[in-house]
Amino acid sequence: MRDYFDYPILGVLGGMGPAATVDFQQRLLNIRAAEKDQDHLAVVTWNHAGVPDRQLAIQGLGASPVAALQHGIQQLIQAGADKIAMPCNTVHYWHATLQQQSTVDIFNMIDLTVQQVKQQHGTSQKVAVLATCGALQTGLYQHALQQQGIDFICNDAAEIEDILMPAVYAVKANQLQQAGEQLHDLGQRLLARGADSIILACTELPIALAAVESSILAQCFDTTQILAEACVAWSDDYYNC
Amino acid sequence: MRDYFDYPILGVLGGMGPAATVDFQQRLLNIRAAEKDQDHLAVVTWNHAGVPDRQLAIQGLGASPVAALQHGIQQLIQAGADKIAMPCNTVHYWHATLQQQSTVDIFNMIDLTVQQVKQQHGTSQKVAVLATCGALQTGLYQHALQQQGIDFICNDAAEIEDILMPAVYAVKANQLQQAGEQLHDLGQRLLARGADSIILACTELPIALAAVESSILAQCFDTTQILAEACVAWSDDYYNC
Repeated sequence: MRDYFDYPILGVLGGMGPAATVDFQQRLLNIRAAEKDQDHLAVVTWNHAGVPDRQLAIQGLGASPVAALQHGIQQLIQAGADKIAMPCNTVHYWHATLQQQSTVDIFNMIDLTVQQVKQQHGTSQKVAVLATCGALQTGLYQHALQQQGIDFICNDAAEIEDILMPAVYAVKANQLQQAGEQLHDLGQRLLARGADSIILACTELPIALAAVESSILAQCFDTTQILAEACVAWSDDYYNC
Repeated sequence: MRDYFDYPILGVLGGMGPAATVDFQQRLLNIRAAEKDQDHLAVVTWNHAGVPDRQLAIQGLGASPVAALQHGIQQLIQAGADKIAMPCNTVHYWHATLQQQSTVDIFNMIDLTVQQVKQQHGTSQKVAVLATCGALQTGLYQHALQQQGIDFICNDAAEIEDILMPAVYAVKANQLQQAGEQLHDLGQRLLARGADSIILACTELPIALAAVESSILAQCFDTTQILAEACVAWSDDYYNC
């Protein structure tokens, strides 16, 4: 059996939001069969609810979250983190800034997701990006998809403002049923407009879609799951080296 | 709005098991209505799967977990924890040892639970303790209930060995359905033997019972929930002081 002190430590910079952070940790447990506690990963999670709102910051309507994020990364490193995952898509807007200040490597969820889209579909299919206003405004996914030559569509501004954003905040308030139905509807619109698959570009989305057992999940790239799988693979590789 | 640096930090010493640690974090989110991320707690969780098996240690069949536990507490303190919760009943066997070495206070889940039993039922009712072999062997709950003059019963040795322990390890392996049915059956036996309520003295138990929507949950003292409520109350008090 592996010794306690031989495990690589995965750091999770959470709080964005708190529910998505818990969902991410559950995914880490579900990925592979474990017979006992000791088969799982060693994870330290900084799930601080007080990170300033990323959406407001991107729109210039609220404080920057960077000082809080840098503090969180520092605490994770002090707690022994060997690599850091951020289960929030929007926060990757600051990925380069945070990576510059961090002595440990930070997974890039956007790159991991776009790589997986390309691996599965090449450039022959059209992908939809289901994302928050803030994430779309930064162009995070649009740029990464363009660079890979992958065609994409998004919801229109009114759909995002009137339906997607209230649904995301409903998940943060633990109101999953209505949010799930609305997000399912938004996803179906994207498929009806010619998308072959959908990137769930916000980690609150799969929580609500799972709560209503949405059929569109089968056609989605679930960014929470993609990041979790990369973390488990990293932990396995670390141990095998 | 509260400033990021004004939140008290709850430390969670997890890994016992990893699924119970995630369940505990979800409870922290569900306890009170939140409208936005920032309404939740600031939590740092040390969910290290490699803590040596507590059951084996108590039975003298495996390594002591104390060095690993002390290390986990140290990492949580370095990450800024102001108070520590351990969402595992059995590990409270070492509570005094760990508290002695820790510069921050550690919640006592056993005391919190027995206090709640006494508050709700006084000493007029009989409570059952649904617990692992290791927890029962330490007498953790039996002593605390005796001290409060509360009458109690437990499953017999064969039930624990043949049914409860395999069910607990099944939860650790994420096999919830069968475990839930078996635990429901064990709980019903305790009620049939005259118990008015049941202490779920292992944090894996409510996960399996919830998975099968067991009717006995309504008659249970859920130790995960009791600890989570104490943590949320502590965070509220800390902020109000």
